[in-house]
Amino acid sequence: MDEKVDIIIIGGGPAGIVSAVNCKKYYPTKKVVLIRKNAEVLVPCGIPYIFGIMLESVEDDLVPSQMLQKIGIEVVIDEVLSIQKNDHRVITEKKHYNFDKLILATGSVPNVPKNIQNHDADGVYYVPKDNVYLNNLYTKLSSAKKIVVVGTGFIGVEIAGELSNNAKQVTLIGSSGLLKHAFDVELSHMMEEQIVNDNLDLIKHTRVLKINTDDKNRATGVLLDNDECLECDAIIFAIGYSSNAELAKNAGLKMSKFGAVYVDEYMRTDTKDIFAVGDCAEKRHFITRTPINVMLASTATAEARIAVGSLYGINYIKGFQGTINIFSTVIENVCYASAGLTERDAKKQDFDVACATFEAKDKHPAKLPNAHKQAVKLVAMRRNGVVIGAQVVGGIDSGEMINMLSVIIENKMDIYALLNLQVATHPLLTASPTSYPIVKAAELIDIAINSCEV
Amino acid sequence: MDEKVDIIIIGGGPAGIVSAVNCKKYYPTKKVVLIRKNAEVLVPCGIPYIFGIMLESVEDDLVPSQMLQKIGIEVVIDEVLSIQKNDHRVITEKKHYNFDKLILATGSVPNVPKNIQNHDADGVYYVPKDNVYLNNLYTKLSSAKKIVVVGTGFIGVEIAGELSNNAKQVTLIGSSGLLKHAFDVELSHMMEEQIVNDNLDLIKHTRVLKINTDDKNRATGVLLDNDECLECDAIIFAIGYSSNAELAKNAGLKMSKFGAVYVDEYMRTDTKDIFAVGDCAEKRHFITRTPINVMLASTATAEARIAVGSLYGINYIKGFQGTINIFSTVIENVCYASAGLTERDAKKQDFDVACATFEAKDKHPAKLPNAHKQAVKLVAMRRNGVVIGAQVVGGIDSGEMINMLSVIIENKMDIYALLNLQVATHPLLTASPTSYPIVKAAELIDIAINSCEV
Repeated sequence: MDEKVDIIIIGGGPAGIVSAVNCKKYYPTKKVVLIRKNAEVLVPCGIPYIFGIMLESVEDDLVPSQMLQKIGIEVVIDEVLSIQKNDHRVITEKKHYNFDKLILATGSVPNVPKNIQNHDADGVYYVPKDNVYLNNLYTKLSSAKKIVVVGTGFIGVEIAGELSNNAKQVTLIGSSGLLKHAFDVELSHMMEEQIVNDNLDLIKHTRVLKINTDDKNRATGVLLDNDECLECDAIIFAIGYSSNAELAKNAGLKMSKFGAVYVDEYMRTDTKDIFAVGDCAEKRHFITRTPINVMLASTATAEARIAVGSLYGINYIKGFQGTINIFSTVIENVCYASAGLTERDAKKQDFDVACATFEAKDKHPAKLPNAHKQAVKLVAMRRNGVVIGAQVVGGIDSGEMINMLSVIIENKMDIYALLNLQVATHPLLTASPTSYPIVKAAELIDIAINSCEV
Repeated sequence: MDEKVDIIIIGGGPAGIVSAVNCKKYYPTKKVVLIRKNAEVLVPCGIPYIFGIMLESVEDDLVPSQMLQKIGIEVVIDEVLSIQKNDHRVITEKKHYNFDKLILATGSVPNVPKNIQNHDADGVYYVPKDNVYLNNLYTKLSSAKKIVVVGTGFIGVEIAGELSNNAKQVTLIGSSGLLKHAFDVELSHMMEEQIVNDNLDLIKHTRVLKINTDDKNRATGVLLDNDECLECDAIIFAIGYSSNAELAKNAGLKMSKFGAVYVDEYMRTDTKDIFAVGDCAEKRHFITRTPINVMLASTATAEARIAVGSLYGINYIKGFQGTINIFSTVIENVCYASAGLTERDAKKQDFDVACATFEAKDKHPAKLPNAHKQAVKLVAMRRNGVVIGAQVVGGIDSGEMINMLSVIIENKMDIYALLNLQVATHPLLTASPTSYPIVKAAELIDIAINSCEV
């Protein structure tokens, strides 16, 4: 007999967690079951820091266990084999369930470069959100001296940086510059200068052609498309993630671009009572409105909240139309953050934009201890001044400044509104009110595009 | 003969500086003269840090000199005696000027408690934005051991904290709790616990009745309204500021509540071609729309930008209607910040509000070094959920988080939009995406005011 459940959530990552927690909070009498494969769950964006000196083990990056059970969610460690969508059934290895509502939060899996010879040799690793795999990787890397990291997206850059901080000799290889999807070239260059050190080499605009192996199929190095051959003890591929949506596909749910599950604005799939959220669900870009395969825990959790608020009828007009594509990271104690479109991407897509960058100190007067450079770049539509992108380089507080810029983009504010933005300025906390960089960058754009002279 | 000038700015503080700089940037061919009394200008909110261990002297808090001259602004050290508004004339000690446009940025002066006996005795000090006065105060305090600071607003709290960090024995006296205009009582209590230490006593809900003096009119202590008598070497009154608007009043400009110069939305006084910005100009509250005597450098600079953009015809629809009343400070390495209405003020003014506070760690996982508690309180209208106030306690990045909340308030966003706010979350920079405190506080309010159970 099927076990009858009000709400089933498949997947234990951030989207699954928020779905489950919010189901229980908003619908406390409902029976909520979360099914996931692994006994433990990792904080996904914390993974790179396992390999450095910030965290001491994979365990330090686990989501506290029992958190879900404590608030009345039933957590089942099991594998879902199939979904029978018309019958509201979920078949797992151990059981059959019947659901009222189903939320798919099956996440994403690392891309594997199947075209590269020996991509599956011993000593070639990936970065799945799987604590068992990563525990093994952690152990293997402890004896490695020379490590090649392939991929200059966030995970590649962060893991390479952390491994080098941990006294490994790291070569970071990318087919483009650093973090090119989030930052314009001048910011990429700043990062590149900062990340390279005695322990870390960067090879840009280069591809791996082949993994060299010994006679026991152990990786010994990589052959690059510039004919260079690098010896190493381990290779980590961090070349992006793809939606983990096989289950949905096999169930006959409508699929979308990039192999993600089709969803409407309220995270509803094409099948009544089935929702999809997070990395497995389709995303569109807030500005361009085109499909995009960006995968962010922050977007995933926002989508989970929308799905829960739409489970039994739509309770909220959706607050955002598409992902703002907002990122932040830290390289050698400097924060780099980006939201919306970069100048390059905007121009590539034929947006007529005007851009400006303003740099100030993030404390005032500048003689205060710990004053740090802070630069803000704004990308605005030339005609009406609406801000469609922003990038920040600076101290730790730039992590919240990019969130402020995200709110600015979401509200379609223009540079003219930013000219008299109301911010709190304090000597120990922010730039001076006379040179707050968001306001000053707006001013530079205004002066560039308008002649106010009378 | 009158000297003919296109634009005269009176006052050298943040509002005057931004007025002058922007006049020159937006109207580069105009002759711009800035007249101020003092040869040097202080960073106003940096003043408390002169008296601690952060800055080494009053000089460290000066605005870099020659900055204005370098971009072609004529800076005149002189005192304006009168304005002849109908003749477009300004009369100073040294000269007569004729102007096209005049911007008043005459700032504010410390309140003096004239009802307190011996308020002008030797050893009784105030905190004017005047480097000569403060240099003298700095010297006098160097030999003082016991200091009484009267006033629990920002300047009083910050100066008391800094003096105690500098090994002075400080008693901070206030007629209410700490920073009551910006924070609800639970946050005030947190600050109080933090600020009190071996060097700093706090006496709340108490008034100074009299300054005790010796036979040479030197202050020896204070008599309180609880009959207590405190001995001390120096007394600093930090009991607020009043608009410095005598010049405008004597010129016959229309005045407003709290002794400020009347201005319309575009910083125009009642007289054509004369503008007023900053502490000397009237302010209204963004939410209540009632006059308010809040004085902030950030508001002052925003007003300066509006005035310059309206000098020769209005170039921009004003981005804000009234001051959002946004503050931040640091007490013992903890940031406290506030924007909009507090719960207490909202209720006092009959706003039907719902409030919630959510506390998280500002890094994730929480085991990361430097993870700090971060609490966000939201004040929202019960019916439509519009956010009208916010308070944050946390690490240094809370200084930019309150600015994000200001943008949220300015855009009249509601808690339902905040449920799926798009933010970047990063282990080293922010709270986790599953517990970002702005989103979670919105969720608590939603759950409290709406029953979603079906």
